[in-house]
Amino acid sequence: MEFPSDEMRRAALGEMPCDLLIKDGVLVLPNTHEVVEGDIAIHGGHIVGLFEEYEAKKTLDADGMYICPGLIDGHIHVESTMLTLTRFSTLALSHGVTTIVCDPHEIANVCGISGVAALIKESYNVPMSVLFTASSCVPASPFEMGGAVLDSRDVMQLLSSDKVVALGEMMNFPGLLQGEAVPVSKVRVAKEMGMRVDGHSPLLSGKELDAYILMGAQSDHECSLGEEALEKLRKGMWVMIREGTSAHNLDLLGYLLHKGVNLRRCMLVTDDRDVRDIAYKGYLDEVIRRAIQMGVPPIDAITLATLNPATYFSLREYGNIKIGSRADLVMVEDLEDFKVHTVLTGGQVVVENGKPTYTPQKTSFDEHILKTVHCPPVSRDMLTIHYPEPQLNTRPNNPTTQDYKKVRVRVIGLVEGSIITESLIEEVDVVGGELVPAPERDISRLAVIKRHRDGIVSQQNIPKLSLGFLHGLGIQRGAIASTIAHDAHNLVVAGIEKESMSHAIEQIRRMQGGVCIADEGGSLAWLKLEVAGLMSTEPTEKIMKNLDKVERAAHSIGCTHPSPIMALSFVALSPVPHLKLTDRGLIEDMHPVKLVLD
Amino acid sequence: MEFPSDEMRRAALGEMPCDLLIKDGVLVLPNTHEVVEGDIAIHGGHIVGLFEEYEAKKTLDADGMYICPGLIDGHIHVESTMLTLTRFSTLALSHGVTTIVCDPHEIANVCGISGVAALIKESYNVPMSVLFTASSCVPASPFEMGGAVLDSRDVMQLLSSDKVVALGEMMNFPGLLQGEAVPVSKVRVAKEMGMRVDGHSPLLSGKELDAYILMGAQSDHECSLGEEALEKLRKGMWVMIREGTSAHNLDLLGYLLHKGVNLRRCMLVTDDRDVRDIAYKGYLDEVIRRAIQMGVPPIDAITLATLNPATYFSLREYGNIKIGSRADLVMVEDLEDFKVHTVLTGGQVVVENGKPTYTPQKTSFDEHILKTVHCPPVSRDMLTIHYPEPQLNTRPNNPTTQDYKKVRVRVIGLVEGSIITESLIEEVDVVGGELVPAPERDISRLAVIKRHRDGIVSQQNIPKLSLGFLHGLGIQRGAIASTIAHDAHNLVVAGIEKESMSHAIEQIRRMQGGVCIADEGGSLAWLKLEVAGLMSTEPTEKIMKNLDKVERAAHSIGCTHPSPIMALSFVALSPVPHLKLTDRGLIEDMHPVKLVLD
Repeated sequence: MEFPSDEMRRAALGEMPCDLLIKDGVLVLPNTHEVVEGDIAIHGGHIVGLFEEYEAKKTLDADGMYICPGLIDGHIHVESTMLTLTRFSTLALSHGVTTIVCDPHEIANVCGISGVAALIKESYNVPMSVLFTASSCVPASPFEMGGAVLDSRDVMQLLSSDKVVALGEMMNFPGLLQGEAVPVSKVRVAKEMGMRVDGHSPLLSGKELDAYILMGAQSDHECSLGEEALEKLRKGMWVMIREGTSAHNLDLLGYLLHKGVNLRRCMLVTDDRDVRDIAYKGYLDEVIRRAIQMGVPPIDAITLATLNPATYFSLREYGNIKIGSRADLVMVEDLEDFKVHTVLTGGQVVVENGKPTYTPQKTSFDEHILKTVHCPPVSRDMLTIHYPEPQLNTRPNNPTTQDYKKVRVRVIGLVEGSIITESLIEEVDVVGGELVPAPERDISRLAVIKRHRDGIVSQQNIPKLSLGFLHGLGIQRGAIASTIAHDAHNLVVAGIEKESMSHAIEQIRRMQGGVCIADEGGSLAWLKLEVAGLMSTEPTEKIMKNLDKVERAAHSIGCTHPSPIMALSFVALSPVPHLKLTDRGLIEDMHPVKLVLD
Repeated sequence: MEFPSDEMRRAALGEMPCDLLIKDGVLVLPNTHEVVEGDIAIHGGHIVGLFEEYEAKKTLDADGMYICPGLIDGHIHVESTMLTLTRFSTLALSHGVTTIVCDPHEIANVCGISGVAALIKESYNVPMSVLFTASSCVPASPFEMGGAVLDSRDVMQLLSSDKVVALGEMMNFPGLLQGEAVPVSKVRVAKEMGMRVDGHSPLLSGKELDAYILMGAQSDHECSLGEEALEKLRKGMWVMIREGTSAHNLDLLGYLLHKGVNLRRCMLVTDDRDVRDIAYKGYLDEVIRRAIQMGVPPIDAITLATLNPATYFSLREYGNIKIGSRADLVMVEDLEDFKVHTVLTGGQVVVENGKPTYTPQKTSFDEHILKTVHCPPVSRDMLTIHYPEPQLNTRPNNPTTQDYKKVRVRVIGLVEGSIITESLIEEVDVVGGELVPAPERDISRLAVIKRHRDGIVSQQNIPKLSLGFLHGLGIQRGAIASTIAHDAHNLVVAGIEKESMSHAIEQIRRMQGGVCIADEGGSLAWLKLEVAGLMSTEPTEKIMKNLDKVERAAHSIGCTHPSPIMALSFVALSPVPHLKLTDRGLIEDMHPVKLVLD
């Protein structure tokens, strides 16, 4: 913080009344892991007195409620909520989250450093502490091309920002542990600045994990197995236990508890959480509640989302109830229920009875953030998967000779509840010289279309796209298209008929980003996400309503997956195992592979 | 650390043999509070592998011993051991202490910033990590004058040193909590540099404590009461539980355990420890052993002197067994005994079977560090306490009229086992126009003589000195003199006959610092401390032998105090309650007072 003002000093000494006195609370203290009755004196937005008697200009009666430090989400991509920071913070605050460490990785992949700057600018206007990591891997891998590249100089520029507290998840672990110049230079700068380096290393273990940690990765939020989390903790990583919408890793806590492991280097984070999950189930408040149900003592569970992340990120004013801390406080009637009643940030009440007490400011974005779908129209013919692939300078295939042949192809297999995909091998038919989907066996056509400014391969205005097959959506007709496709966020479309797919793509071009479900007749439902093709400036309620409509429409064309948009958003993420489709084609475990095996 | 070398990376990956493999150890892991079997691979002085199989150039068989991180003393004044850093580190290492955070407050008070520079220079030549705090209060109070002043610019210069990790104990808490410019500017600079600010606030509580913490004090090592430690922890301080030679605060641990308080913000430190205590009883190894005997689980006790101080000071490579940590390791056969067997620092064995395996380098100091006793000779007449005080421009007192009168005077009362003194009021006799000591009631004469370069008040070469009385040493004749007198380290002499006192002073002038016991016939025993009048370059064994001789000589003149030199060293420390004698006269709780009450 700024050095305390002379007024704060005098208020602490009791030489003048403090701004606010919270009386009759029961304080939850992560420093001592105690729960103790006591009053809190606040001045200049900070705690200036504890456990003494105070004169105050204003008094808030806690009436015996428990008072905890404001919750901290140490790893979240806000873009995944589809909300602007402004609307997100209102929702998050009502669930007791007063600080987030946000990796602006998604908008950085679309709009580059100016996208991050837009979020940082917005963060100054919300009554929540929004801190950032400098996204380290834009693009996420050499096998996909987003809208921007952040080089070492860009990362250094971001790290110098007051709002940036760490280097964002270093997904390029193969590069780092091979000592490649680009990832090494980014980590080196962060370490020299005394900053943390967030890791990202699903299932990495043994000597490769050792080298990854040695080279600078200090945390991991990708643990899915108990033994994995334990190995990472023992070797020196901080483990962020992630409980998102797709990835559910809270069971790790049970494992660690069972092993009698001290939790001082664990945190609770969400990474990616659907707006409806937050609105209906909750945010870190829900994660804490469930941790308590698993047998974690309430004070320990709360510490996992307050003092521990604050310690990890060296945020000395955050996540604590102590003299000098920011007056970011959460009041709950019952510690085990952990139902958020009142929330203060910087000494101001922002939530009362679980409802926000303020109206969020209006957000505006520059044109280049709002116009990010640059691909030309995609005709149905462009979505044809020719067999065999057309050779340049030869005469066209003779359709009749290829018909009714069966061909073995690689198919991306969705795994429910995971962002990992299977690499399946299935037979598909050749009809009229093209490979066709097989809805009866849940095999749909998949296309990834480059949508960024240079997403055109020639003067003839031909879109750059890749084609493949997908298993696990369940659709029987129509198409689902979306501009949310980690990490490059190209336009991804799954469908049965090419016509529907082409139609959905066109609707997304018109909206400049978002989600569309189409059927033969045209669009069935859509959600406009005009901010970088990822987020909407619409009110939260309206976004949730449109999302529901979209999902209902998806189910109306046969979709059996509970979260089709989320599922689709991970089929292009090449750094995650196993088979993925990017604008550069099919990628299996970071190696390009062919669609057809025969 | 430096960014890991390419060799370290390759050793971690197992692509080349590592420097050293420690096999068959049982690892004590503060991260998880576990004790787990496993091997350690070391390369480039750091841990590059854990729990895997390794090829190595050299192997060290731990043979089932427990391996802990090297111990960290987060608050020590090395000068108090009377050893040079070089000899101290050899002794400390043999007790498992591989890192110290040293406040060079004593030498700074004598020699200023060049004294600190001498210690920092020496620290580069010892096989131990010696880190420093920038001494914040030189002089310690406005009521004493040492050999130097460190102003805000000097402190800023020190804080910029690579070896400096925090602002040293901010003893001027009255100044800080009144918002005075000088202490505030020092704290502000440290905070802006992201550094910790060590506090020093014996018995401070309530709103004054709140203001002290708010203004920047982040730790305290002066807690003597359980409730005091608990209040400080709850309000946000890190509590350094001190177990030194004079101050024994380990009982605090029992109190905190009993209260069920989490110890994550507690540490074990020594502050001031006699060289013989370290050699015969132990250092932090002994403190850990006793903590375990009090019921603290061994892994928790070890964490108090490893990960906790490392976390407090943000020393990310220290106090831990993890990938990337410095290979500072301590091997013990039994965790509860905690008898140190083998010690490594930076991957090199420095202690084996409890004995150092290396010969310390020779230390040399510049002339101005070795010549620091600048006062002129002090004759017996100068030690006379006139009654009434002589008035300028009046005729001399008539001795006969004043004789045999009894006069009430303030007497400094030593309290065994504490650096706090009592302010006693006693009667002394007036004989021949002077106040005389009363050995039969344990009241000796006390003198504090300014010994620093400007320690002369006039051209006539007259020493600047203050006189008073002391209770609690027990001496019946002779004198005890010493240049160790916190914090200004002037020359302090307690005695019965002025002749003996004058003699002891002369011997100290000859030695250029140290301790002397004198009797009518002359010096009985002495210890030369030529380094700033505080430390000796002699071998540790010889210093201990001379110290024993000095204490035996003290007892031969009737001294009943178990640690007369240590006791004497605190009678001039004005910031500590209650009555003290400095070169500026008698000071009671930071207010000047008169000797005679009538």
